[in-house]
Amino acid sequence: MRATDTRMFEVSDDGPVVPAERPVPVPAAGEVLVRVRARSLNARDLPIVGRRYSVAVPPGRIPLSDGAGTVEAVGEGVSRFQVGDRVMSTFHPNHLYGPLPGWGELYGVQRDGWLTEHIAVGEHSVVAVPEHLSFAEAATLPCAALTAWSALSGIGAGDSVLLQGSGGVSVFALQFARLAGARVLVTTSSAEKGRRLRELGASEVVDRTATPEWGDQVRELTGGGVDRVVDIGGAGTIAGSIAALAQGGTISLVGNLGSGGGMDLTRFLSRGATLRAITVGNRSDFERMNRVIGLHQVRPVIDRIFPFEESPAAFSHFEHGSRLGKVVIGD
Amino acid sequence: MRATDTRMFEVSDDGPVVPAERPVPVPAAGEVLVRVRARSLNARDLPIVGRRYSVAVPPGRIPLSDGAGTVEAVGEGVSRFQVGDRVMSTFHPNHLYGPLPGWGELYGVQRDGWLTEHIAVGEHSVVAVPEHLSFAEAATLPCAALTAWSALSGIGAGDSVLLQGSGGVSVFALQFARLAGARVLVTTSSAEKGRRLRELGASEVVDRTATPEWGDQVRELTGGGVDRVVDIGGAGTIAGSIAALAQGGTISLVGNLGSGGGMDLTRFLSRGATLRAITVGNRSDFERMNRVIGLHQVRPVIDRIFPFEESPAAFSHFEHGSRLGKVVIGD
Amino acid sequence: MRATDTRMFEVSDDGPVVPAERPVPVPAAGEVLVRVRARSLNARDLPIVGRRYSVAVPPGRIPLSDGAGTVEAVGEGVSRFQVGDRVMSTFHPNHLYGPLPGWGELYGVQRDGWLTEHIAVGEHSVVAVPEHLSFAEAATLPCAALTAWSALSGIGAGDSVLLQGSGGVSVFALQFARLAGARVLVTTSSAEKGRRLRELGASEVVDRTATPEWGDQVRELTGGGVDRVVDIGGAGTIAGSIAALAQGGTISLVGNLGSGGGMDLTRFLSRGATLRAITVGNRSDFERMNRVIGLHQVRPVIDRIFPFEESPAAFSHFEHGSRLGKVVIGD
Amino acid sequence: MRATDTRMFEVSDDGPVVPAERPVPVPAAGEVLVRVRARSLNARDLPIVGRRYSVAVPPGRIPLSDGAGTVEAVGEGVSRFQVGDRVMSTFHPNHLYGPLPGWGELYGVQRDGWLTEHIAVGEHSVVAVPEHLSFAEAATLPCAALTAWSALSGIGAGDSVLLQGSGGVSVFALQFARLAGARVLVTTSSAEKGRRLRELGASEVVDRTATPEWGDQVRELTGGGVDRVVDIGGAGTIAGSIAALAQGGTISLVGNLGSGGGMDLTRFLSRGATLRAITVGNRSDFERMNRVIGLHQVRPVIDRIFPFEESPAAFSHFEHGSRLGKVVIGD
Repeated sequence: MRATDTRMFEVSDDGPVVPAERPVPVPAAGEVLVRVRARSLNARDLPIVGRRYSVAVPPGRIPLSDGAGTVEAVGEGVSRFQVGDRVMSTFHPNHLYGPLPGWGELYGVQRDGWLTEHIAVGEHSVVAVPEHLSFAEAATLPCAALTAWSALSGIGAGDSVLLQGSGGVSVFALQFARLAGARVLVTTSSAEKGRRLRELGASEVVDRTATPEWGDQVRELTGGGVDRVVDIGGAGTIAGSIAALAQGGTISLVGNLGSGGGMDLTRFLSRGATLRAITVGNRSDFERMNRVIGLHQVRPVIDRIFPFEESPAAFSHFEHGSRLGKVVIGD
Repeated sequence: MRATDTRMFEVSDDGPVVPAERPVPVPAAGEVLVRVRARSLNARDLPIVGRRYSVAVPPGRIPLSDGAGTVEAVGEGVSRFQVGDRVMSTFHPNHLYGPLPGWGELYGVQRDGWLTEHIAVGEHSVVAVPEHLSFAEAATLPCAALTAWSALSGIGAGDSVLLQGSGGVSVFALQFARLAGARVLVTTSSAEKGRRLRELGASEVVDRTATPEWGDQVRELTGGGVDRVVDIGGAGTIAGSIAALAQGGTISLVGNLGSGGGMDLTRFLSRGATLRAITVGNRSDFERMNRVIGLHQVRPVIDRIFPFEESPAAFSHFEHGSRLGKVVIGD
Repeated sequence: MRATDTRMFEVSDDGPVVPAERPVPVPAAGEVLVRVRARSLNARDLPIVGRRYSVAVPPGRIPLSDGAGTVEAVGEGVSRFQVGDRVMSTFHPNHLYGPLPGWGELYGVQRDGWLTEHIAVGEHSVVAVPEHLSFAEAATLPCAALTAWSALSGIGAGDSVLLQGSGGVSVFALQFARLAGARVLVTTSSAEKGRRLRELGASEVVDRTATPEWGDQVRELTGGGVDRVVDIGGAGTIAGSIAALAQGGTISLVGNLGSGGGMDLTRFLSRGATLRAITVGNRSDFERMNRVIGLHQVRPVIDRIFPFEESPAAFSHFEHGSRLGKVVIGD
Repeated sequence: MRATDTRMFEVSDDGPVVPAERPVPVPAAGEVLVRVRARSLNARDLPIVGRRYSVAVPPGRIPLSDGAGTVEAVGEGVSRFQVGDRVMSTFHPNHLYGPLPGWGELYGVQRDGWLTEHIAVGEHSVVAVPEHLSFAEAATLPCAALTAWSALSGIGAGDSVLLQGSGGVSVFALQFARLAGARVLVTTSSAEKGRRLRELGASEVVDRTATPEWGDQVRELTGGGVDRVVDIGGAGTIAGSIAALAQGGTISLVGNLGSGGGMDLTRFLSRGATLRAITVGNRSDFERMNRVIGLHQVRPVIDRIFPFEESPAAFSHFEHGSRLGKVVIGD
């Protein structure tokens, strides 16, 4: 490795990711060069590195949408950041405000992502890290936290929320819903995870293995259903989510665990329900969320931090391990 | 028929509805006695009179949710109306504000409806008729117009809306969307109806028979899809509705023409879409809508008015005829 | 006093209120008879009993808008409540939903209020008491709590709120803002009250006597101003409220301590601010607030409870005493 | 003038503006060079060129916030626009979304504005011109149209709006309110302008000279007041605006004709009113407005177009002339 080279991991046919070296990029006009210090994994990264994503992923692509680090150099005309600033990625690099106009270029798919030591991106594609967070903590926010934040939009004191499992989105949603004064119920299949989720503020935990009709049970526990479900399972959970919903309630569909099935429109209609597809969120929402994270000194729940060299193991743990919170790849 | 009797039509095994006579009801405390002058039919009335409704309908039940007439007497303690006031029904008799708490007692199902000359209902279950409307026009509003109004909630100048067909809800939605400054596209299968819909303000009409891929065509015509679809067909149209939708758009699901099928969650998710089940609306919204109808002197589009005696024929026309707008049963 | 009589206090020229006896009212159709068990005082009650209210108050008028008790009898046609139900008053007796259409008939002004043992009111003019509350606690809600709730509308996790003093509205606002995840600053002139307000969740307390420029100090403490001010003082505090406000923030004007002055439009404009007049709230909002109070088991802060016989002393304490929270008149 | 020079007008002690020449700017990284083809005047430009603005304006400053032209060159790293694109200015050059964080650098005050033939600005500080508009028309939009758009936020079919006079903001507000289905009343002091305003869609015109109590008259004409007032006069009109307002209505305070006075809080409170300071708007709102302008082919109302050389005369006409719509300075 030359002094001017930097290290990264690439998508490969020989494993989830393989190490590589390339020259440190030079930031173009309007770009910042980030020395990446931490990254985190999301459900979408598995089909990407597994080459099973809905869009073709070329070999050699650097995966991961989520990263945090320090600005090491700035290109001409950069005004939002200076050398030394701590920044993190935005999931949609050019989505500043309003609804998502289209899926555009995604990290790990059409463009190289953050599983690298150095990345050059437009200054408009990164945001400041809240002061109280470490790089590892900051790296958990771009996709999962903002998805949870968007999925809870409109929830306030007195509302009830059903979450599913202990993945990154669900654990952030638990933290945010509690901040907003909402009552939180969670489904899980592990007694130990149930205990942790209660510590984090869940008032009821439903064992979805022991209770296949978990939707009906949630409806009973809440005396008529919850105001919001953050649906993670898509086709596998949507029927239970509708069952759990209060009259007039909303399902936020994240659905990253496979959404290839259908939804019963008649039952949905009888509930007077709303279904909202969540597409992470824009930079304006991200900044707003970060302000709240800062004010309340929210600490992201990290399941485990892997050293940069052990990136392949991080993917393996993410796919097969029992997790609660976010899986991080550090220095 | 005695002088103290009044006439009505009842659900029966011998036809959609059969004539009957009963004593004129005496309004209890808090009730008004309405001399009904006009009623209108809605899609849900067909399974009700056909005894195919999702909830059992007892023989002898008087159908129809929608009616308008004059207050002929008031019970003790009534303060909202007086004798001589022109009033119309609300679809959910006890739904004053907020989201629908549950389906409760519905006209034509758990309680007798408006296909009668006299009905006694709580004073909170009727609202004033806008001054410029006839009874026939007023009788078209309670279900179809309020459903259209709710389905368009949030639409404003510059938005684009896709409507389906020429039934009551779609024609009201066309009128309301135009008032709000929106661009309206409509699918239909008849050139003649297409002509009428254009006259009413549709800027594009798509022939759904000639163009089975009408959803894609709407997406093309609008350079990326519409902001709102008012979906009438449920399982039969939802795929086309998603195809027609702009990134971030909303489908209002009325779905009264059969909703027994499923919806592809993956495609829905990729659109960043929202699906809202429309359950008519509450009295607060009804009053707000009536204020707008009054200000803009909106005139409901009536397909045909049947005399009261010919009520069975009205059901037959509603089921089998080619319609544009509302079918009314008058005096 | 005959067995069929009940006791009350009336507005009088001989003191704030004088005792009286009248027959127990008989509930008319649509009315409930409430055996009142507790009432609370609000700032507007002082000018009413002092005959300095903006509208003439006739001698003999029974004051107070706020009360709670048990339904002792129901008139014909009543369906929302039955004998034995615990209910409390709504400030605007006929304001069910939407914005206030006009001030209408107010308790203590155009109609007799709740400083009585028995009152007959329309069933639509009372709401159910949250289960965990005593009558004394319930009696604090109709005016002050709903005013605080309305004044905080739209506030969520991460927002900052400035409150003024330790009166009923401010203390409820403190409780509600904390539930919603907001940061709360309060001005007060007493170290002891400051201590109590901190215990209730205020993160900063500003001494408005020691710091006449409290608005500027709040702006400093918050690094740019608060998102919301609940302004209690009207003309006496509005300049400080504008000074304390963040760019784009909102002042909720309760202003019951005298609003007879002006507001500098230029400074308001430069702040990009919003000013909202709070007119208590409607029944729909009241029910929503009560649901949240129930879920979070919120306990109203009662300054002191006076026995019914000592009602005059309650007014005296309310006017001259040092208070924190609500002054209640019990059995 | 050298070939590499361009012409502009500067603020001066010798008149409103005096001609000057400077080198054509070279666009830095992230900037576009615009060949300006038209500009428009706003009320704030008079105190700026008159050196009476609230912030000191240095001599030699180029005034005007509003301009439109063609991209003639782009700096390094520019991706939003290319040479030949038609663009117009945004009033706040760095205000992309959300509420205005502070007044920042304003054209004509802290930085040079658009009364020039060439200007280099950040690519994020300009937006695309709707296709159907000329440069003169586009140049009217950045300040006045967006102010009107923001001032009408939330207005829909059936609402009533009061506008004041025939300046740029009021005429745009008239066009936008009509698009949204609202009823519009306007005050004016000229019968001829009244006629033009009716042609543009005003349903009632009130002569404010003949009717000093115009607020009360508007309240009468609308049977209880308007839902929205776009207040242009600030201290001079606010009392009338409150008088004209319906219970629960909103005053959008533009107030550019002098806001140095006070507002009666008591009357405001009794109306249950809201007062919102309008600070033009952000780029996100501007783009949304332009989409609507494009869909409805809205044509801005231009009072008069002055040739570039006659810029001083444009200021004189703007200050002293009788105007309806926008004053433009063209090529």
